[in-house]
Amino acid sequence: MIDLFYWPTPNGHKITLFLEEAGLDYTIHPVDISAGDQFRPEFLAISPNNRMPAIIDRNPKDGGEAISVFESGAILLYLAEKTGRFLPVDIRGRTAVTEWMFWQVGGLGPMAGQNHHFGQYAPEQIPYAITRYVNETNRLYGVMERRLAQVPFLGGAVPRRCRSSAVPITALRTWPAIPGLCRGSASSRTLRTFRA
Amino acid sequence: MIDLFYWPTPNGHKITLFLEEAGLDYTIHPVDISAGDQFRPEFLAISPNNRMPAIIDRNPKDGGEAISVFESGAILLYLAEKTGRFLPVDIRGRTAVTEWMFWQVGGLGPMAGQNHHFGQYAPEQIPYAITRYVNETNRLYGVMERRLAQVPFLGGAVPRRCRSSAVPITALRTWPAIPGLCRGSASSRTLRTFRA
Repeated sequence: MIDLFYWPTPNGHKITLFLEEAGLDYTIHPVDISAGDQFRPEFLAISPNNRMPAIIDRNPKDGGEAISVFESGAILLYLAEKTGRFLPVDIRGRTAVTEWMFWQVGGLGPMAGQNHHFGQYAPEQIPYAITRYVNETNRLYGVMERRLAQVPFLGGAVPRRCRSSAVPITALRTWPAIPGLCRGSASSRTLRTFRA
Repeated sequence: MIDLFYWPTPNGHKITLFLEEAGLDYTIHPVDISAGDQFRPEFLAISPNNRMPAIIDRNPKDGGEAISVFESGAILLYLAEKTGRFLPVDIRGRTAVTEWMFWQVGGLGPMAGQNHHFGQYAPEQIPYAITRYVNETNRLYGVMERRLAQVPFLGGAVPRRCRSSAVPITALRTWPAIPGLCRGSASSRTLRTFRA
């Protein structure tokens, strides 16, 4: 059983997508970030950066005590290694998935976040900042477009024989982070045809 | 032999630190980002996001053709798994390292980068943006301070018996990203006493 500390944001969706796709048993514990739940001491104990998602795995692979994990990227890696799914074992497939996963974590995720902040949430319109992050987000979408012109998923091809393990950890990471795709389809066609 | 595509920035240092600590044989290929080397087609072929560092491993573990890797986080994971160093195998130690590694990649790295941009490089002074990123960077330093009050490294303790494999992948990631530490000592004491 996995306890998932969750609120319906892109980073939260990444973990529910994995858990659903992997068929893992889980319980959602809402972390209402609009009410400040993320600052409660009991949540901080497992997520010292005050951010959801986080998980507690009550049945870890080593048979020991429960393990908590914070940071959506670390959670996906943990779950992939726990289940043996969505992350190839061979170093070539694995590398293709992890490099695009880190690209999402360190680039697309935070830069799209700044873009949305200055475009939609900031209390003042700041043209320099808006332009900076619109441009960077569009640059990153261009990188994604070029990748998806070559392979069906950011993480690479999905040979039929290993469909369940080849790339989705990257798809799961990136898909919820793309505005307008959250309620759509995560198919490669959707990603390929998506424009910023 | 590892070919390292490098320029002396915090992300570049992360990889040279690993290669030196692991004693791996490598050749540096300068990517002069001030001259636009990162946009050359031959570099794009291995680093589609136009960013250094990137590596080509001429002797991959599977004995096959050379493998290229981009994204500093993916490179560190690749090298850790290639060498069996700086990343624990047991899931508890491994999880502690990867969650703080992702914290650096997705939080401290990009937010400190925005802080430096608006504080030092932007052509205009924008108080709202400066305050936003100074506050967020200070918040992240506070998270780091609290962690380092509990354990000697972000990735956890370093028991003497596994000093070479327990945490440095996180130390290697975070240390170069902290201004003022690049020419100093990466000891836990330095990290603990560092103030934003």
